[in-house]
Amino acid sequence: MSRTTDARRHHDPEVRGFASDNYAGAHPEILAALAVANGGHQVSYGDDEYTEHLRRIMHSHFGQHAEVFPVFNGTGANVVALQALTDRWGAVICAESSHINVDECGAPERVGGLKLLTVPTPDGKLTPELIDRQAYGWEDEHRAMPQVVSITQNTELGTVYTPAEIRAICEHAHERGMKVHLDGARIANAAASLDVPMRAFTNAVGVDVLSYGGTKNGMLFGEAVVVLNPDAVRAMKHIRKLSMQLASKMRFVSVQLEALLAGDLWLRNARHSNAMAQRLAEGVRSVDGVRILHPVEANAVFARLPHEVSRRLQRRFRFYFWDEKAGDVRWMCAFDTTEDDVDAFVQALKEEMAA
Amino acid sequence: MSRTTDARRHHDPEVRGFASDNYAGAHPEILAALAVANGGHQVSYGDDEYTEHLRRIMHSHFGQHAEVFPVFNGTGANVVALQALTDRWGAVICAESSHINVDECGAPERVGGLKLLTVPTPDGKLTPELIDRQAYGWEDEHRAMPQVVSITQNTELGTVYTPAEIRAICEHAHERGMKVHLDGARIANAAASLDVPMRAFTNAVGVDVLSYGGTKNGMLFGEAVVVLNPDAVRAMKHIRKLSMQLASKMRFVSVQLEALLAGDLWLRNARHSNAMAQRLAEGVRSVDGVRILHPVEANAVFARLPHEVSRRLQRRFRFYFWDEKAGDVRWMCAFDTTEDDVDAFVQALKEEMAA
Amino acid sequence: MSRTTDARRHHDPEVRGFASDNYAGAHPEILAALAVANGGHQVSYGDDEYTEHLRRIMHSHFGQHAEVFPVFNGTGANVVALQALTDRWGAVICAESSHINVDECGAPERVGGLKLLTVPTPDGKLTPELIDRQAYGWEDEHRAMPQVVSITQNTELGTVYTPAEIRAICEHAHERGMKVHLDGARIANAAASLDVPMRAFTNAVGVDVLSYGGTKNGMLFGEAVVVLNPDAVRAMKHIRKLSMQLASKMRFVSVQLEALLAGDLWLRNARHSNAMAQRLAEGVRSVDGVRILHPVEANAVFARLPHEVSRRLQRRFRFYFWDEKAGDVRWMCAFDTTEDDVDAFVQALKEEMAA
Amino acid sequence: MSRTTDARRHHDPEVRGFASDNYAGAHPEILAALAVANGGHQVSYGDDEYTEHLRRIMHSHFGQHAEVFPVFNGTGANVVALQALTDRWGAVICAESSHINVDECGAPERVGGLKLLTVPTPDGKLTPELIDRQAYGWEDEHRAMPQVVSITQNTELGTVYTPAEIRAICEHAHERGMKVHLDGARIANAAASLDVPMRAFTNAVGVDVLSYGGTKNGMLFGEAVVVLNPDAVRAMKHIRKLSMQLASKMRFVSVQLEALLAGDLWLRNARHSNAMAQRLAEGVRSVDGVRILHPVEANAVFARLPHEVSRRLQRRFRFYFWDEKAGDVRWMCAFDTTEDDVDAFVQALKEEMAA
Repeated sequence: MSRTTDARRHHDPEVRGFASDNYAGAHPEILAALAVANGGHQVSYGDDEYTEHLRRIMHSHFGQHAEVFPVFNGTGANVVALQALTDRWGAVICAESSHINVDECGAPERVGGLKLLTVPTPDGKLTPELIDRQAYGWEDEHRAMPQVVSITQNTELGTVYTPAEIRAICEHAHERGMKVHLDGARIANAAASLDVPMRAFTNAVGVDVLSYGGTKNGMLFGEAVVVLNPDAVRAMKHIRKLSMQLASKMRFVSVQLEALLAGDLWLRNARHSNAMAQRLAEGVRSVDGVRILHPVEANAVFARLPHEVSRRLQRRFRFYFWDEKAGDVRWMCAFDTTEDDVDAFVQALKEEMAA
Repeated sequence: MSRTTDARRHHDPEVRGFASDNYAGAHPEILAALAVANGGHQVSYGDDEYTEHLRRIMHSHFGQHAEVFPVFNGTGANVVALQALTDRWGAVICAESSHINVDECGAPERVGGLKLLTVPTPDGKLTPELIDRQAYGWEDEHRAMPQVVSITQNTELGTVYTPAEIRAICEHAHERGMKVHLDGARIANAAASLDVPMRAFTNAVGVDVLSYGGTKNGMLFGEAVVVLNPDAVRAMKHIRKLSMQLASKMRFVSVQLEALLAGDLWLRNARHSNAMAQRLAEGVRSVDGVRILHPVEANAVFARLPHEVSRRLQRRFRFYFWDEKAGDVRWMCAFDTTEDDVDAFVQALKEEMAA
Repeated sequence: MSRTTDARRHHDPEVRGFASDNYAGAHPEILAALAVANGGHQVSYGDDEYTEHLRRIMHSHFGQHAEVFPVFNGTGANVVALQALTDRWGAVICAESSHINVDECGAPERVGGLKLLTVPTPDGKLTPELIDRQAYGWEDEHRAMPQVVSITQNTELGTVYTPAEIRAICEHAHERGMKVHLDGARIANAAASLDVPMRAFTNAVGVDVLSYGGTKNGMLFGEAVVVLNPDAVRAMKHIRKLSMQLASKMRFVSVQLEALLAGDLWLRNARHSNAMAQRLAEGVRSVDGVRILHPVEANAVFARLPHEVSRRLQRRFRFYFWDEKAGDVRWMCAFDTTEDDVDAFVQALKEEMAA
Repeated sequence: MSRTTDARRHHDPEVRGFASDNYAGAHPEILAALAVANGGHQVSYGDDEYTEHLRRIMHSHFGQHAEVFPVFNGTGANVVALQALTDRWGAVICAESSHINVDECGAPERVGGLKLLTVPTPDGKLTPELIDRQAYGWEDEHRAMPQVVSITQNTELGTVYTPAEIRAICEHAHERGMKVHLDGARIANAAASLDVPMRAFTNAVGVDVLSYGGTKNGMLFGEAVVVLNPDAVRAMKHIRKLSMQLASKMRFVSVQLEALLAGDLWLRNARHSNAMAQRLAEGVRSVDGVRILHPVEANAVFARLPHEVSRRLQRRFRFYFWDEKAGDVRWMCAFDTTEDDVDAFVQALKEEMAA
C-alpha cells in the first residue's frame, strides 16, 4: 500500500515560537510508543495491559501506594482531583493566578460545583500565611467549607516551590483537616529545576493528589490524576467517568505516559526546555529596557517591555501578552525549542528595542 | 538514535474478540496522519491549520453551514451538544436504552444539569408516537421543559434509522419547538448500512447537532460536535471548554478526523465492520438454539443463548452480556475484525452449543 | 392603632375546591402559633429556642436519634435529603410517578447532579422486585451508582404502604448498601390511614431520612428533613444552606411544626382530609360511568370519567386532570374540606354525568 | 375553642440585641396580613389573587414593566436572578465582600454553576474602575464570560450607593454587553437613607433585575425577584421552580409583601432602623477608643474596639465580630430596635470600655 494516509501536511514543521509549550507537537518517542501499543484488541476503559503496566511505573516514581488514573487534559485532571477531595459543601483554597481559577472557563464551579477561595500572591506561590486568609470557618454553614489547598508546581508564573515550602503547606493544611492537591501540569520542569525526584516534593512532603502533566512535556495529549494518599479519595473511576475524562482506548494514553516515564524522556524534555528558558533569560538580561519579572526557575520567562516593541516582535515570533495593560509578556520554551530559536529571538528583541 | 521509545509491547497484537469496537486499536492510516501533523509549532486550542482544514472537509460531508468542534470522547460530544441545545430549564427526550441515559455515569445530569425524559423502545429507535409520551408540558414550570430529542444512529441495539424515519422525528420535534441531536458514535456504520452519504440522514432531514464518532471508526481517540444548524446554538467554544473537552494540541484530533474523512477511510472501515457483522449473523443463524434478537443492520449482533454456553465461549473470545439474566449477549465487529476471526468464533459457538 | 395592616382581602374565603391540598390556607392554630413565637430577638438560622424545642418534639415522634432540619418546601426537603444520602456519583431509585421525577422541574438533577433511576409502577408503590430493575452495577463506573431508594408515603397516587411493605424495601435496600429516603409530603395522612404512629412506618422499619410535610397538613409553608439514621449523613446544615433552604427567621418555621406536632393537630387534620376523601369516594361510587382508579387510602381520589363531563364540572369546582388523554382526574381533600363541600361536589358530578 | 394552639412561648419577647436585623421577628402588621389572606382555597404556586395584586403594587413602585417573582429567601432571590441573567458559560462580577460571595455556602457556584469574578473594595461598593479589573475577555473561551455585574444596595458594609453611582455602573456594564443585578436585601433602608423612591436607584438608572428584600424589613420570611428589564430574562418561573424557591401557598408570601408595600410600612420600618443606627453611631462616637469604620448610611454600624471589650459586651448584648482578628464588630439595628435599646447599649459600651 503506497498511500499511508489521506491526511496532508498543512504547516511548516520548521516554525517554532515562544507562545506556549503546548504549541509544540509530540516528541518522536511518543509517536513511536503509539505504534508499540497498536494492533490487536485490548480491554477498553483502562483494563488494558498498558494501563496496568503504567501503574508499576508510577510506583517507581511515587511509591507503592500511588494510584494512577489517566485522563485527557489538564482541566480534566484538576477537576477530577478536586471533586475527589471535596464533599458537596467543600471549597478549594488556591492562588488567584492559578489555572483552575483563571483559565478553565469556570469548569471547577460548573462541573464540580466547587467554590474557589482565592488569595492574591506576589509570585504564584501560596504560603501558610496566605492560606490562612481563607482557612477558617469550617463550622460555619454560611461559608463554603475549605477542604483542599491547591497549589501549582511549577506555578503559572514560572516559579518553583522548594520541597520544604510544599511540606510547610501540607502540614499547615493537614493540621486544619484539609487535603493538598498539586496541579503538576509542568511537574517535570519543576523536578528538573530542583534536580530532585518528583516524589521529593509530592508524596514525600505530604501532597495527597496530583494532576500529572504529560501534554506540555511532549505527549500528544494526556494527563493523569495520581492519588498519593488513597485514604483521601473514593470512587475515583466513577468521578473520572462522570467528568467525561474516561478514554475508551486508554492504552494510547497509558503508553504515552510509559514512553515518558519508563526511562528519562520526561526529564530530558524538561531539562531541555528549562535550559532554553535560562538561555533566553540570559539573553534578555543583556537587552536594555526589558525587565524580567519573576525568578526564571522553569521553562517560562516573564518580562516587561514597551508595548509597541512587543507588538512588532509578535509579527516575527508568536507569544502572548500576560498583562497587556502593564506591558507584561510571557515567553515559553518547549521540549523542541532550539538554541538557534532562542538566539534568533533575542536578536530580534534587540533589534526591535533599538528600532 | 537506535532507541525509538522506552515504551514496550505488553500485548499480543494478534488477539481480537467481539467485545467492543473500542477494543480495537487505531487504523495504521490514522497513526500515519499523526506523523504528518507533527513537528513545529501550531496554535493550540483549535486555531491550528489542521482544525481549519477539517472545517472544509466537514463542509464536503455536511454542507457549507456545518461547524465542527473536535472533542475527546463520545460522552463529551454528547454532553457538549446537549448543553448547547438546552437552557438551564431544558430536558432531553431519549430512548431508555440510549447511551446518554445508561452508560455515562450520569454525566448529562451532573455536568449539564440535564433532565432526561426517557421512553422505552422495542429496538432502540424513537418515533413521533414514542416521543409524544414525553413531549408535553412546555408551559408547566413543574416539569423540566422538553427542548431536545436525542436519537442514536445507529442505535445502541445495532438498528439503523432510515432517513425518512429521522425526517419524521425532526419534523415532529421542530413543530413542537424542540431541536434534534443525533448521537453518531457509529454514524459511519449507519451510512455504510444505508449506502447513503451521512448528510442524507442528518442535515438533509433536519438534524440540528450531531456527535460525530471517530474512535469506534478507527481513531485512537477523538470525536466532534458538528453543528448543522448554527441558529440552534451559541458559544460552542465556551461550552466545550467548560465541559473540559478542549484539547490543547488539537491538531492531533483534527488530523485524525482528516485521515478518516478526507478520503474514504471512514467508509471502508464501516463497511468492513458491517460486513463482518453480516457474516457473523449468517454463521450464528446456522446454529440451533441461538436466537438473533434485533435486525443486524450495522456492526453489532445481539443474540440469546444458554447462559452457560456464553460463559464457556467467553473463555475463548471476549464479549459482553447485554442482559445477563435473560441470557442476551452482544457481539461487536470492528474495522480490524477478519473473516477468520468470525469463522473461528462461529465454529467455537457451534462447539460450545454442542458440548 | 386602629389600622392593623395595609393588606386587603382579595378572595372569597368560602370558596373551596378539590384541586389540591395546597390550595387550602393555614389552619388557625398555625396562625396563632406565629404570634406566640413573635416579638423580641431570636438567633437566626436555626439557633433559636423554637427550633431547639422542635428537636424534643421530633424525638417524641421519631425517637431520640432523630435530627430535624426545617426547610421551606417539599422540593427543598427532598433534594436536601437526597444530596445528603448520595455521593457525587450516586443515583436514586424511585417510582416513575414520584414527585421528585415528574414535578420538580429537574431540581434533583440540576441542584444535586442526581441521576434518577426510575421504575414504572401500577400504583405508585415500589417493591423489592421493582427496585431490582435498577439495583445493580455498583462496581460499573459507566453507571450512576444506586445509593438511595426513595419512596413516597402516601404515594402520589393516594395509596399507602403498610409498615411491612416499607420494612421489606428497607431491608432489601440496606442489604445492597443503599439507603432509604421517604418523601413524607403527606406523611400525616399515611399515619392516619394506617392508624399507627409515624415511627411505625419510618424509623421502626428502617427508613434513613424522611422529608416531613407540613404545608399540605395545614401550615402556611414549611417542611423538615428528619434524619432518622444519623450515620447515613454528614454536614446537613451545609447542605441545607447551599441548597438555599435555610430560613433566617427559622423560629417561624419551627413554631408551625410545633403547633402541628406538640399535640394532635397533625393527626386531626390528616384524619379529617382522609375522611372527606372516603366520603367523596363513597359518593362517587354511586355515580354510574365514573370509575375510581386506585385504592382510596389517604386524601386523594383518582377517577376516570368522560372528558367533557370533567370539563363542565371544572367550571363549578376546581380540580386537575391527571392524565387528560385518558380522562383521568385527581380530586384532593384538605384539612378544611367540609362534608357539605363533598356532598355538593358529588351532586354536581351526578348532574354533569346526567347532562 | 379556648385553646388556640399547642405551640408554647419559649423566649422572652422583651430581649433584643444588635446581632442582625433578622434576629427580629415579624412586624404585627405582617402577622395581621396573613390572617387577611387566610381561609378558603386559592390557586397554588402563584396563580392566586394576592400574587396578582402584588403585581400591581410592584408596578406602582417600579413601573409598568416590572415583573415580580416571590421567593423564600435572599440566597434564593440572588441565585434565581443571577441564573436568569447568565448563560451556562456566564460569570458574575461582584465585590469580594458581597453576600453572594461570602455568605451563601457557594450556592451560586453549586446551584447555578456560576463563576464569581470578585474585586476587593474599600467600602463594599463597586465602581466602573473596579469593575474593569474583571470586565474583559468576552471572546476568550478559557475565561468564564462576564455577563452580569452584581451590586448590593445598601452594601454589606452599611454604605449606600447614590443613584448617580449606580447609573454609572449600569452604563458601564451595558456598554460592555453586561446586565446589572442589584441585591436589595436591605433595599428599603437604602431608599430611606437616600430619601428617594426605590425606582430612583433601580430602574430609573438601569438596573435589570433586583432581589427585593422583605425579611430584614419586617416579614416572617419572603423576598422577591423583581425583573425591571423583561428583555434581560426568560423562563423566570422555570428557574424559580428548579431552584426550589417556588412556594405552594404563595398567597402567604405575596400578602406579606403587600402589607409592606401597599402603604408605607416598608419605609417606616426602614427609617426607624436607620434612625436607630444614627443614634447608635452618635452614642458610639462619644466613647473614646472606639472607632467607627464605614460611613453609617443605613442600619449598620461597623466599629473597631478592643477585643476583650467586645467579648465582655457580648455577654450583655448579642452581636457579631466582623473581623475577629482586627477587632472589628458589626452592630445592626432592626425595625423593632428602640431608643432605650440603643441608649442602654451605648451605656454598656462605655462601662466596658472603662472597665
